[in-house]
Amino acid sequence: MKVELLNRPTLEFIDSAIGECYDKGKYSDIKKASKRINNVANVYKHSSVLEFTNVIFQITASTKVLLEMTRHRHANYACKSSRYTLDKGEVIFEPTGDNEIDLIMEDLKIKILDQISKGKKNDVVSLMLPQCYQYRWQVQFNYRSLQNFFKLRLDRNAHFQIREVAEAMYNSLPSEHKFLFEDCVYNSKDEING
Amino acid sequence: MKVELLNRPTLEFIDSAIGECYDKGKYSDIKKASKRINNVANVYKHSSVLEFTNVIFQITASTKVLLEMTRHRHANYACKSSRYTLDKGEVIFEPTGDNEIDLIMEDLKIKILDQISKGKKNDVVSLMLPQCYQYRWQVQFNYRSLQNFFKLRLDRNAHFQIREVAEAMYNSLPSEHKFLFEDCVYNSKDEING
Amino acid sequence: MKVELLNRPTLEFIDSAIGECYDKGKYSDIKKASKRINNVANVYKHSSVLEFTNVIFQITASTKVLLEMTRHRHANYACKSSRYTLDKGEVIFEPTGDNEIDLIMEDLKIKILDQISKGKKNDVVSLMLPQCYQYRWQVQFNYRSLQNFFKLRLDRNAHFQIREVAEAMYNSLPSEHKFLFEDCVYNSKDEING
Amino acid sequence: MKVELLNRPTLEFIDSAIGECYDKGKYSDIKKASKRINNVANVYKHSSVLEFTNVIFQITASTKVLLEMTRHRHANYACKSSRYTLDKGEVIFEPTGDNEIDLIMEDLKIKILDQISKGKKNDVVSLMLPQCYQYRWQVQFNYRSLQNFFKLRLDRNAHFQIREVAEAMYNSLPSEHKFLFEDCVYNSKDEING
Repeated sequence: MKVELLNRPTLEFIDSAIGECYDKGKYSDIKKASKRINNVANVYKHSSVLEFTNVIFQITASTKVLLEMTRHRHANYACKSSRYTLDKGEVIFEPTGDNEIDLIMEDLKIKILDQISKGKKNDVVSLMLPQCYQYRWQVQFNYRSLQNFFKLRLDRNAHFQIREVAEAMYNSLPSEHKFLFEDCVYNSKDEING
Repeated sequence: MKVELLNRPTLEFIDSAIGECYDKGKYSDIKKASKRINNVANVYKHSSVLEFTNVIFQITASTKVLLEMTRHRHANYACKSSRYTLDKGEVIFEPTGDNEIDLIMEDLKIKILDQISKGKKNDVVSLMLPQCYQYRWQVQFNYRSLQNFFKLRLDRNAHFQIREVAEAMYNSLPSEHKFLFEDCVYNSKDEING
Repeated sequence: MKVELLNRPTLEFIDSAIGECYDKGKYSDIKKASKRINNVANVYKHSSVLEFTNVIFQITASTKVLLEMTRHRHANYACKSSRYTLDKGEVIFEPTGDNEIDLIMEDLKIKILDQISKGKKNDVVSLMLPQCYQYRWQVQFNYRSLQNFFKLRLDRNAHFQIREVAEAMYNSLPSEHKFLFEDCVYNSKDEING
Repeated sequence: MKVELLNRPTLEFIDSAIGECYDKGKYSDIKKASKRINNVANVYKHSSVLEFTNVIFQITASTKVLLEMTRHRHANYACKSSRYTLDKGEVIFEPTGDNEIDLIMEDLKIKILDQISKGKKNDVVSLMLPQCYQYRWQVQFNYRSLQNFFKLRLDRNAHFQIREVAEAMYNSLPSEHKFLFEDCVYNSKDEING
């Protein structure tokens, strides 16, 4: 599993959006801007202003994580197709955390590679790929949909792999943006330690 | 694979939407209504009026199909979780069309059931599920997003399983609505026969 | 101002969506179904199942209301164009609740009709239309976006005309669906009476 | 009317998105990247990759333009409220291009200011504001929704004021991004000169 933040998100246009709505202009001071953003978006729940910051990640994770992440419809996806990777014989599995199961998966991988080498069609062989099979994709969230993503996926009920990805996404954010997502993370850490 | 149309879609509110836009009222005659809908939505490409018909399906198909279908973000999904089915020991695979691979999958299924019976956690065992594993879900499209879905998924480049699902969806529609999707299907049939 | 419910919304597919998610099937009993819907959607906030009910209204109201309603992006719109109505000399204003202002508006209307009769172009004359000018449109919400609409537009801070429209929309809903929106309305009535 | 581009849009993440989809990596060379983007997005119509570039404008224009622009639901809006501007007595009208009508509007403005000075409530006075009344807002489009916006609003059938805004938006884009929107603009210029 790997998460990389690709762009440099800025709060500048959330700040100017708030300035527009209330006809107050924008702040040059980041501390004042952040305080006002916190008030408007978190305290008063006018979350639509958060749509003006976009964040783009490259994520390498299991099919399970991809299946759950793409259910978030307010995001943009570009995904590496198994059609291209199987052609090259690239079959990587994410560890499941269970040795016995990892061994069964290793055995399955050999059988998959064997079918590829026999020249079986991609679209048939790919039906053998387990949910630990590793995909890679680029995804864009705005900060409003990211808040919603974190609320659901940093929760103790989330699958452990998507929670790990969500935590890595949170950690990769600029530290001065984290106040926007603190509520979600606190609950999560609380549960994890509890 | 199974596709069932759950609701009874009607063109009535596409007709009244067009009547609203052009201040012409709505038709009581279905033939006249259909002709006007065809003109506005297909010939002049004012597709937004098609958003007023919603169609709801229950679909039973492979993980592969679910993975591709949920990439369509202008649709609504309710999906049966593998958490519930694994708990009951329900593990059904869609046939892959390749006997040798189906046998490997049968062998994998036995190993999955064995891990369940050993009391391994759901969230770990589910990582073993292959893309031929059968999910079931309810999905809603409006006729605008359904046109887009058919254009992409009835194409000869689509994976054969999602094309089969798309064809079954098309076939389950009321025959008097099919003129809205004929272009997509014609291309598809053409390729299939060609 | 006039609000008419055009379709007959049903909770049937919210019920079947919940049945799908939890693998419990659907209820034939409407009371049991409603209780489960309330639990899942309102108590546990799994609001996405509410997207399976769609409701379609025809609304006749001021430009002010149209301006605010179209800011709700999870809805579908078909609007009667002022291009068609001005051509016919149809210029209707919603009462503002202030006699002096209504008289000024009557005077403006005479000037607008005069410009039309002089053969001035529609696209120029329409720039004279005030925000009390009456539009008519068809709009579709699903019950998830309708909850959000009511939360914002039944609020005491909402403009009085959009609050009136929102109340008429609420009143036109089937009484056995109103439990889904009670929280929003209670707050509103509370403020109105307070 | 005034249009200002607020951010510096980059094609970098469209390029990396395409690299991801086809497992080809990204280009460091902007010319090669642009050629590939043109092929994928314009020639082969895989427009979803265009969602990875976001562009943010501040727009000062008439109520007419705001009414039409907000119908584009794949965009994000933050709008200066007439509640704040009326409080300050700020009432600015966009010129209509017709002297006689502009004079009627000047007369209306005096009556509006008079109602404000009499202490009439904002929410009632604002119903007098004509569609030439000037709003200001911040709007974000991604390049996919911007293509759609330009197709509709640079068209000869679009209202002249929104066409002017769309042209100013197009002109403010980085010149090396304009190949993405050339089709729309050519048609427009063609019609304007024709």
